[in-house]
Amino acid sequence: MDLNADLGEGFGHWTLGDDATLLSIVTSANIACGHHAGDPDTMRTTCTLAAEAGVTIGAHIGYRDLPGFGRRFIDVAPDTLTNEVLAQLGALSTFARTVGTRISYVKPHGALYNTLVRHEPQADAVVDAVRLFDPSLAVLGPPGAVWLKRAAVAGLRTWHEAFADRAYTSAGTLVPRTEPGAVLTNPTEIAARCVQLATEGWVRSITGRPVRLQADSICLHGDTPNATTTARTVRTALEAAGVVVSRVESPLHHARHAV
Amino acid sequence: MDLNADLGEGFGHWTLGDDATLLSIVTSANIACGHHAGDPDTMRTTCTLAAEAGVTIGAHIGYRDLPGFGRRFIDVAPDTLTNEVLAQLGALSTFARTVGTRISYVKPHGALYNTLVRHEPQADAVVDAVRLFDPSLAVLGPPGAVWLKRAAVAGLRTWHEAFADRAYTSAGTLVPRTEPGAVLTNPTEIAARCVQLATEGWVRSITGRPVRLQADSICLHGDTPNATTTARTVRTALEAAGVVVSRVESPLHHARHAV
Amino acid sequence: MDLNADLGEGFGHWTLGDDATLLSIVTSANIACGHHAGDPDTMRTTCTLAAEAGVTIGAHIGYRDLPGFGRRFIDVAPDTLTNEVLAQLGALSTFARTVGTRISYVKPHGALYNTLVRHEPQADAVVDAVRLFDPSLAVLGPPGAVWLKRAAVAGLRTWHEAFADRAYTSAGTLVPRTEPGAVLTNPTEIAARCVQLATEGWVRSITGRPVRLQADSICLHGDTPNATTTARTVRTALEAAGVVVSRVESPLHHARHAV
Amino acid sequence: MDLNADLGEGFGHWTLGDDATLLSIVTSANIACGHHAGDPDTMRTTCTLAAEAGVTIGAHIGYRDLPGFGRRFIDVAPDTLTNEVLAQLGALSTFARTVGTRISYVKPHGALYNTLVRHEPQADAVVDAVRLFDPSLAVLGPPGAVWLKRAAVAGLRTWHEAFADRAYTSAGTLVPRTEPGAVLTNPTEIAARCVQLATEGWVRSITGRPVRLQADSICLHGDTPNATTTARTVRTALEAAGVVVSRVESPLHHARHAV
Repeated sequence: MDLNADLGEGFGHWTLGDDATLLSIVTSANIACGHHAGDPDTMRTTCTLAAEAGVTIGAHIGYRDLPGFGRRFIDVAPDTLTNEVLAQLGALSTFARTVGTRISYVKPHGALYNTLVRHEPQADAVVDAVRLFDPSLAVLGPPGAVWLKRAAVAGLRTWHEAFADRAYTSAGTLVPRTEPGAVLTNPTEIAARCVQLATEGWVRSITGRPVRLQADSICLHGDTPNATTTARTVRTALEAAGVVVSRVESPLHHARHAV
Repeated sequence: MDLNADLGEGFGHWTLGDDATLLSIVTSANIACGHHAGDPDTMRTTCTLAAEAGVTIGAHIGYRDLPGFGRRFIDVAPDTLTNEVLAQLGALSTFARTVGTRISYVKPHGALYNTLVRHEPQADAVVDAVRLFDPSLAVLGPPGAVWLKRAAVAGLRTWHEAFADRAYTSAGTLVPRTEPGAVLTNPTEIAARCVQLATEGWVRSITGRPVRLQADSICLHGDTPNATTTARTVRTALEAAGVVVSRVESPLHHARHAV
Repeated sequence: MDLNADLGEGFGHWTLGDDATLLSIVTSANIACGHHAGDPDTMRTTCTLAAEAGVTIGAHIGYRDLPGFGRRFIDVAPDTLTNEVLAQLGALSTFARTVGTRISYVKPHGALYNTLVRHEPQADAVVDAVRLFDPSLAVLGPPGAVWLKRAAVAGLRTWHEAFADRAYTSAGTLVPRTEPGAVLTNPTEIAARCVQLATEGWVRSITGRPVRLQADSICLHGDTPNATTTARTVRTALEAAGVVVSRVESPLHHARHAV
Repeated sequence: MDLNADLGEGFGHWTLGDDATLLSIVTSANIACGHHAGDPDTMRTTCTLAAEAGVTIGAHIGYRDLPGFGRRFIDVAPDTLTNEVLAQLGALSTFARTVGTRISYVKPHGALYNTLVRHEPQADAVVDAVRLFDPSLAVLGPPGAVWLKRAAVAGLRTWHEAFADRAYTSAGTLVPRTEPGAVLTNPTEIAARCVQLATEGWVRSITGRPVRLQADSICLHGDTPNATTTARTVRTALEAAGVVVSRVESPLHHARHAV
């Protein structure tokens, strides 16, 4: 099981999260590319730290919206979105290469993450960008997202993720943050769910029903209170349960997820 | 003789200059990389047009200053400047690659252009960025600039440029724009100077003395009145004088400019 | 009849439209406030020119989106939108005051203009901002817009506008730009429609039916080809037809539009 | 003695410092106006909190440089700087007014603070902006700064400040941050210096000599480790020594500082 977290989300003088600690826990780092967060300095520093920690680097792409941290839907034209994603991939991959490594996958951030679950023109726009940039990159998202289906059709490898600290509906979708119980906060409970997910392939929904979830990676949050404590607890519990915590193995999943 | 011009200097809804016409005249295009001007859409469009026109692409790097169009000195820390240049090179080269070509050289814009003539820490910062990104790239600037000297020491090819529409002092430096006579406007006079420069290697200074100028490229401006008329007049005059107007040949200059 | 146009829509080095000419034609200037276009220099310059021309100043408020020129819907939180509008009103009114005049009305731009026709939370957010800033300001928009209804309930004066160069449906709404015939380009035809609107209170819809339109102001565009020619033709035709072209008289309309 | 601190220096999703605690200690709040930090939401929130705490509001103006947090000199044209300051004053004063209060003074931030000590054209530009906006505003800066002299000549009230945690040269200027001993970190020592300054009007320089310092206000930093502990210690010590900690009284100082 792969563990991923959002990193490099500072901007200029502002910092966010405890990147150093998270890099000692996760196996994949979603690094901000300057459009919703991040700047040239944070991209280089975070790529350097990830490379030193042996953590896989992913491009955490977002809407061009620093004031809104990429958390507001923007009705951007598909062609422009393709080009904005290309610019982000070009910048981050340059820093990864500069420090002797490369980017391996692409994960959308915030409002773009949510939009690509259903919005076909923007989904196609992002798939186009990844395909044009480097068709050997994987794409990371929630099972069932429109953009992952389009990515698979385009020949890209798709990695599925689950959220450690979020409740699921019986249909296997995330309970919206605005509803009670949507966000879990107890590290022990979160860790137990992750173990169940990793060893048995299911979680209990908010209404108590078991829900099958096939996940290649579990997303850990870095900007919530006790974020690193929870992350550490999850990793320790997974290893105690005999789960191998390691980066997604590309060739295997390429075959498994192919359409 | 190579002819270069600044292109792709729009931003969002705003446009600047007549890129299409200039691309039918020049042999090298300095394309804005999003920090002083340009955005993902303009970078892609301009790279596409340049590739179609067979024009060499250069990265026109600048301070991160859209409100000031990169025309104000910013006392940015050298490490940050290195990373900002890397981000610009990474973005533009991605678009060049996407349309089937590549960037060949780097030219600083505006205040950065002027600063690098003398400012050693920023000069080193930019040279570091180019070297880290791709040491096969050439760098384009005025003869005598500190940053070109550092670039040569770092093993980069250096290309020298002269300005078609600017007066020179007897020392071979540009007459500051604030002084009378600094900017030439008569297309015929400008073209005659360019022919003299290309065929004999000198121009007459503002005080009337001949000044030797070794230039690989002549910079034509695109955002002044009659810009394209002047550019066309220069090219026509050069060709009438038997000057071959073509991109700088890299291997040759590599040898000639080596330290 | 009042004539309004969008002005001050440059940014830094970039310019847009022929403000000087338009200011000799219109009676109300919608001046960009820095969020979709405009910057401190353009705000001051445009306020100065408007004051000299005796043209009424309105705040042309928009989404915080320079890269998209305010033309993309952004799902911004209502509280944030209220504050963003307050910031824009505060900035523009400062420049208006600095040059000895004041702002008289508020008009939304681009995607915000379209959104406020129907989006209740954003409509309330903008009304809140205007009311908090200065309840003596009028608000300018299309007849029937949700935000004008809310503004009227909040005690603000509402001014209605029609578009000189746009086709209307038989329901009195604008034909979307994506449909054929949506934008009119013939200056003579546009001027004739404006005269009919001003003298008889109706226009012919795209299907040929007469549509009643009560307009206090006609919007002239400044960034289309022949924009100033069309604007001049409209004003000349109106005056030839005996229509008094002058700013909206506030007290009168306050009474007429009150709920 | 007045105590001032920098507040409202977050941006979007990013926060900085412990504003709530500082507002229970200081008597004057320098609130960021959106150019080096701050946005419409932070301006409104911070003005609200300051008003509730009975703390005087000052406009903390800076270069337009969010990526650099206003800490890099920008060679901006004086006219543009005047307009940028006007825009900042217009925005912040709008939020102050919206919550029922007003701004009382202006303090430059970061690189602008340092530049205005000597740079005459930029000093005049800022003085022009304050004078145009509201000549009843005071200006806050270090004794001897060029811009305070120009402000006094222009009829503005000038308030002088000292730094609680910075070493002074024997000439009464700040020891540059790059030199050893420039920044003090011991809360008890800092508090003792503040008491001496407030009761006797001098501090001991870095070389041990007593230096006269006339200060109306002491600047406390909010973004250093133990910032709020130090701030609290200073205030407690001042009050224990019988110093009245309160906002600068305007009429008194108007007389005292007048040229």
